[in-house]
Amino acid sequence: MAQNYSFKYFTVQFPAESPYVAHVEINRADKMNAFFEAMWLEMRQVFTQLSEDSSVRAIVLSGAGEKAFTTGLDVKAASQGGPLSSDSNLDPARKAVHLRRHVLEFQDCITAVERCEKPVIAAMHGFSLGLAIDLSTAADIRLCSKDVRFAVKEVDIGLAADIGTLSRLPKVVGNFGWVKEVALSARIFGAEEALRVGFVSSVYENRAATIAAALKLATLIASKSPVAVQGTKEILNWSRDHSVQDGLRYTGVWNSAALQTGDVSAALLSGLQKRTPTFEKL
Amino acid sequence: MAQNYSFKYFTVQFPAESPYVAHVEINRADKMNAFFEAMWLEMRQVFTQLSEDSSVRAIVLSGAGEKAFTTGLDVKAASQGGPLSSDSNLDPARKAVHLRRHVLEFQDCITAVERCEKPVIAAMHGFSLGLAIDLSTAADIRLCSKDVRFAVKEVDIGLAADIGTLSRLPKVVGNFGWVKEVALSARIFGAEEALRVGFVSSVYENRAATIAAALKLATLIASKSPVAVQGTKEILNWSRDHSVQDGLRYTGVWNSAALQTGDVSAALLSGLQKRTPTFEKL
Amino acid sequence: MAQNYSFKYFTVQFPAESPYVAHVEINRADKMNAFFEAMWLEMRQVFTQLSEDSSVRAIVLSGAGEKAFTTGLDVKAASQGGPLSSDSNLDPARKAVHLRRHVLEFQDCITAVERCEKPVIAAMHGFSLGLAIDLSTAADIRLCSKDVRFAVKEVDIGLAADIGTLSRLPKVVGNFGWVKEVALSARIFGAEEALRVGFVSSVYENRAATIAAALKLATLIASKSPVAVQGTKEILNWSRDHSVQDGLRYTGVWNSAALQTGDVSAALLSGLQKRTPTFEKL
Amino acid sequence: MAQNYSFKYFTVQFPAESPYVAHVEINRADKMNAFFEAMWLEMRQVFTQLSEDSSVRAIVLSGAGEKAFTTGLDVKAASQGGPLSSDSNLDPARKAVHLRRHVLEFQDCITAVERCEKPVIAAMHGFSLGLAIDLSTAADIRLCSKDVRFAVKEVDIGLAADIGTLSRLPKVVGNFGWVKEVALSARIFGAEEALRVGFVSSVYENRAATIAAALKLATLIASKSPVAVQGTKEILNWSRDHSVQDGLRYTGVWNSAALQTGDVSAALLSGLQKRTPTFEKL
Amino acid sequence: MAQNYSFKYFTVQFPAESPYVAHVEINRADKMNAFFEAMWLEMRQVFTQLSEDSSVRAIVLSGAGEKAFTTGLDVKAASQGGPLSSDSNLDPARKAVHLRRHVLEFQDCITAVERCEKPVIAAMHGFSLGLAIDLSTAADIRLCSKDVRFAVKEVDIGLAADIGTLSRLPKVVGNFGWVKEVALSARIFGAEEALRVGFVSSVYENRAATIAAALKLATLIASKSPVAVQGTKEILNWSRDHSVQDGLRYTGVWNSAALQTGDVSAALLSGLQKRTPTFEKL
Amino acid sequence: MAQNYSFKYFTVQFPAESPYVAHVEINRADKMNAFFEAMWLEMRQVFTQLSEDSSVRAIVLSGAGEKAFTTGLDVKAASQGGPLSSDSNLDPARKAVHLRRHVLEFQDCITAVERCEKPVIAAMHGFSLGLAIDLSTAADIRLCSKDVRFAVKEVDIGLAADIGTLSRLPKVVGNFGWVKEVALSARIFGAEEALRVGFVSSVYENRAATIAAALKLATLIASKSPVAVQGTKEILNWSRDHSVQDGLRYTGVWNSAALQTGDVSAALLSGLQKRTPTFEKL
Repeated sequence: MAQNYSFKYFTVQFPAESPYVAHVEINRADKMNAFFEAMWLEMRQVFTQLSEDSSVRAIVLSGAGEKAFTTGLDVKAASQGGPLSSDSNLDPARKAVHLRRHVLEFQDCITAVERCEKPVIAAMHGFSLGLAIDLSTAADIRLCSKDVRFAVKEVDIGLAADIGTLSRLPKVVGNFGWVKEVALSARIFGAEEALRVGFVSSVYENRAATIAAALKLATLIASKSPVAVQGTKEILNWSRDHSVQDGLRYTGVWNSAALQTGDVSAALLSGLQKRTPTFEKL
Repeated sequence: MAQNYSFKYFTVQFPAESPYVAHVEINRADKMNAFFEAMWLEMRQVFTQLSEDSSVRAIVLSGAGEKAFTTGLDVKAASQGGPLSSDSNLDPARKAVHLRRHVLEFQDCITAVERCEKPVIAAMHGFSLGLAIDLSTAADIRLCSKDVRFAVKEVDIGLAADIGTLSRLPKVVGNFGWVKEVALSARIFGAEEALRVGFVSSVYENRAATIAAALKLATLIASKSPVAVQGTKEILNWSRDHSVQDGLRYTGVWNSAALQTGDVSAALLSGLQKRTPTFEKL
Repeated sequence: MAQNYSFKYFTVQFPAESPYVAHVEINRADKMNAFFEAMWLEMRQVFTQLSEDSSVRAIVLSGAGEKAFTTGLDVKAASQGGPLSSDSNLDPARKAVHLRRHVLEFQDCITAVERCEKPVIAAMHGFSLGLAIDLSTAADIRLCSKDVRFAVKEVDIGLAADIGTLSRLPKVVGNFGWVKEVALSARIFGAEEALRVGFVSSVYENRAATIAAALKLATLIASKSPVAVQGTKEILNWSRDHSVQDGLRYTGVWNSAALQTGDVSAALLSGLQKRTPTFEKL
Repeated sequence: MAQNYSFKYFTVQFPAESPYVAHVEINRADKMNAFFEAMWLEMRQVFTQLSEDSSVRAIVLSGAGEKAFTTGLDVKAASQGGPLSSDSNLDPARKAVHLRRHVLEFQDCITAVERCEKPVIAAMHGFSLGLAIDLSTAADIRLCSKDVRFAVKEVDIGLAADIGTLSRLPKVVGNFGWVKEVALSARIFGAEEALRVGFVSSVYENRAATIAAALKLATLIASKSPVAVQGTKEILNWSRDHSVQDGLRYTGVWNSAALQTGDVSAALLSGLQKRTPTFEKL
Repeated sequence: MAQNYSFKYFTVQFPAESPYVAHVEINRADKMNAFFEAMWLEMRQVFTQLSEDSSVRAIVLSGAGEKAFTTGLDVKAASQGGPLSSDSNLDPARKAVHLRRHVLEFQDCITAVERCEKPVIAAMHGFSLGLAIDLSTAADIRLCSKDVRFAVKEVDIGLAADIGTLSRLPKVVGNFGWVKEVALSARIFGAEEALRVGFVSSVYENRAATIAAALKLATLIASKSPVAVQGTKEILNWSRDHSVQDGLRYTGVWNSAALQTGDVSAALLSGLQKRTPTFEKL
Repeated sequence: MAQNYSFKYFTVQFPAESPYVAHVEINRADKMNAFFEAMWLEMRQVFTQLSEDSSVRAIVLSGAGEKAFTTGLDVKAASQGGPLSSDSNLDPARKAVHLRRHVLEFQDCITAVERCEKPVIAAMHGFSLGLAIDLSTAADIRLCSKDVRFAVKEVDIGLAADIGTLSRLPKVVGNFGWVKEVALSARIFGAEEALRVGFVSSVYENRAATIAAALKLATLIASKSPVAVQGTKEILNWSRDHSVQDGLRYTGVWNSAALQTGDVSAALLSGLQKRTPTFEKL
């Protein structure tokens, strides 16, 4: 049985037909799921809890309402407080300290998605601007609907995207010219282009179909050995940031424990018996 | 008002209809823009100056004449002097020192394009061989015309490309097999293939259309906050070479100063007032 | 004249029409070329020898029989011995030591393909599962036939792929979402998809046509200066794992010796004389 | 005025004669300050709060009671629960996941000392075993009394030190042979040896004198510009883990904001006027 | 019972009074233990075998005869063959390939000492020149006798030390000025200086006393849990080459298996019962 | 014959009794050799020229006048212009860009000493504050006189040292606690302490004796093969910033050219003939 999840800006559901899958939804549809500080702090809590919840093996992340996955930062809320508002009595160096702390904490909330031990599939639709890109590049797999409108919006409000897009997008999409173009121009791009460059893996008819597909993929992944799946996520993320030699060694050390799982024999036996294996919780 | 630029092998123009955009052209059309040492030394000067010229916010780089962006190294000129010519009285270790100094200096001239704080868009056409690839991978965005003929030509003259292609191309194009194939075979590839693998972002009818498109994109980028644009270029290049964690931290430190720009409020206000923002020089 | 190669599980041939090309074939067609320990140890020998054989300038790797390049690990053989079988009297920490040694040695046998100084082209067909992916990502270029069926199969037997796929695939294919999807779902993918994401460079009608194309490409590469070709492979692999700055410096140091080859003048002269250059052995 | 600090296992005091200095003491003297889980979780809270408390500019960390700074892990408490105790129904791979989460969280609590933006001076005396080394290598400066008895004790209880000693000690003490010897032999070493190899900066007569010296040094540091001091700590830690080139660039970016402090002119003016400068809070 | 070791240039003994300790001696006293190729190839075999021999938990490495640990490369033997001798018909680039292969293989033989899973203590006396430094920096701990005469001799024969000294010495001794001075001047330094800068851990009266002390230290280390000892060596070497953050994570992953050893409870129980623990083989 | 050197703030001499040695002196004794911008720009020129001057094989750097090697930045000059002075009409983000460019250029001038291919020995005396530390950590070897007074002075003027000390000092001195203490406290330390921690290699009676000793050491180094000496400097600096594995490989590639020098046989022959070898210029 999954833990009890009760949050203010996020819903967490466990669809009956998707064993071991958690469906997280950004739940501020009336504001097009725009984020303010309390939301990203809460989001970190959500993914930190799911990371260690042994009833969860895969996660889908979507946005409530038909209009937007998220339009990004709620600029109005941001301008009414927080480090971007005026603290006129501080010198620029002191203001920089406050800004840095703020940015690093904000980044950490997004990184909670990457740090989550379970694979996360982002199912996006409608406006998916700014923070939507930061957030989804911290996820493992991205799907979207035909009506999606993506943009790395930050240069249009006078800043370099600082919550993850600039660090992660070049490692998610192997087309550095395209990454630079969309980050420097802030132009909108749609589903087809996102698919072509590899930002998303597939495109679906609408929001509902995208979420359904994400749940289906999550269910497939959740049916595999959780030892194998979580090891695979971890090692792929490590390898992205290290040389092949360091990646191989880390894999060897990781698997020296992981290979001692009962899941290997469970999987092999099920294979021979042509039935679905059952794996212990993790 | 932009600084005065007067060079021998390069023209630098400031098209009236493209505020804050510099158009740099390799200007040796009669030799298909082939490079010799004085040219790359001058090119470093061009981009070093543009990097700090506050009247410039984006740069287009093209080649004069209809035939070629550049055919690469002027082999004839190279063979008549320089470290590849015979210094028969030096032992191989001493010759190696001279060659290394020469290569590192040559590389540094190309890196001046990457180091330039303003985004650089390469607009290529016709023969774009050898050095053309080194040079354009140091640019931020690559466009080309239909008639372009690319090749990583170096193995055909008995050497491994050493001015940047082998270091940068695998990070510009996320298709390592293709990178190896074109680098090992030296075969020609055209616009369509370049687009498919992500080496260029778009293809245009001819040289003029390519340059026009590059200028248009540069003009768009130059209309954004220069604080945001230049920060975005810098952080993307840093992130390419570091782990995500190091990328995030560098971004946080960078933005602790950059977020104190007046451009954020200028951009936000213009957004509310539906007018084009004006940004101070940088 | 090439060295004499006589192996048990691999054939090594030198096609007359492909000078300087070695054709290595996995030779256990009756078991769909499934691997067990003696095979990967032998494979390391094959590639270590070819690496220093001066009669060899490019290598094609294929699988015997119509059904499979390789179906991966011979699970039956693996379960009858080796570290995955039960050593019930060891505590988990000690068992981990044995597993780690085993994995690191296994990885090293695959890395022999990457370490081989000559370019290796993998020509794949039919079932190409698990180890097929590990193996081919250690090669330089991948080609396949229409009937190929790829899968990163490991999660289906309860483990994270540990022989190289997770470390190398994200650096071979610049589409991190796709890499995660196929590694987490273990689903089959075919030739067309492999081509689209850049896992293979081209697709051919059948096994024979794929091998023919691989031999043709190998022959082309083998006709170039071996100093240039081997330097290109080495520098590209180094650059993949280092920053651009480190890549440039390494290239400069490497080429300070390599540029002193006679191949440069041989190539230049042949170019002027419109004839095929001949290069000394290496 | 400093924030209110009320903790269970740690005391936090603000000595009147040491402006801007916090004195943190491990407060479990009856058990020789041995640690159990609640303590290290609390310690993370202490240093996280101090890190952002603008009334604090330097920190001294000591242990209550005459006998020990800390004897390390409270093995008894550890064996009665937590991941080292038996969860006999889990397979080794699942147990490994629990152990890893536990170790990483424990490490993070120690890293809170390193992450704390203010310099931390460890004042050690008596038994300073195991965790004492992990903890003090995360501090910035180490002082000790003559009666100190240090040991990297972990191999004596059958494990490799995993909370930081093995990662940090080689970077704190530039004598790799000595580091290996004390880590592999678990032997006791005293104040004189610690001073000779550079593990501590100075040795004092007894616990009281050590703490007094630490407070004096902390007071000196706290009298400097907090912008300068905190920048210095941050850049030194960054430089330890990066190349000189990366260190220089990070410093340049960091200081582009930090140099805009009013502290520079305050410091210069005070220098001319021969009086003590006052710096704004940070 | 230890495996049978029978080598030509090395003796391997198992002193009765030092359980689990192997004593390796370079055995070419008549030539002051100078090395030629067959010797370093054999040395790699010795340490590769010892690395996996479960009867061995610590190793002492010394040189036979009173005069020298080793005088380094046998220059005479080296000049009579091998890649340094003249292959006058090869161009410098081709010669470079042969030299590089040769150097990398030679390095790998020395690295076998570092790669060996068991701690290695070098006990040095008399002439300990050139290769002696390369070799001993690959060991974990260095001891020497009063009569030792060290030198990084390579610049005196016209080359930069390439078998490990230049890569490892700066990480063994935290005094970069001293490292540069001895490497650039090739001057002799003695036991006292070596002790002062931390190159050796202790100095003994003569060869016999040094070996005795090394065996005693090895015996102490061999009495500890082999899981703990070998993990400590591995993690310290990894940490030397990585950031603290990467070191901590690797440690966490490593220990997730290693903490499941029976040695922890064996050690704890023995501690309570005041008796010497016994540990299973590894 | 050495090139002609004529500079404004530096003298460059070639002592007759020290063949191949250049003696560079900071020549502003009346201002205690305090630096302003024109000086560090000139210093870069000096070392860039010496780096490629084949008549120079080793360099000594000292300060004119009895009082100081250098007291560091000429604060008065700095406050009258440059980026630290007020540009009140720029926002903090724009000011940051100017500061960053300024710092990076300043750093690059100091790095010219490290980048210089020939070993540089700093001979220090009297006041050696702030920039003196930045500068001397970029040198290879540091000597000083008894009267020296060192300080990492920057925190006392409200800033974190940004021209190299914080990046290089932790890699020059293997005592991270001491480095932090002197950097955070800005306290003076003398010759004896500098020697004890390894910041300097030796201490001499006075300025003259220090310079004499530096020239003697430089003369010794200059008598060795320049191929060997310059390779040793380069590889040691590379190794400082890379893993042992990367260090070994770089060494192998470097030496594949360097070992083809005639210096090896010249050195060996001279050794046999008991005479001083002569080496070709480099």
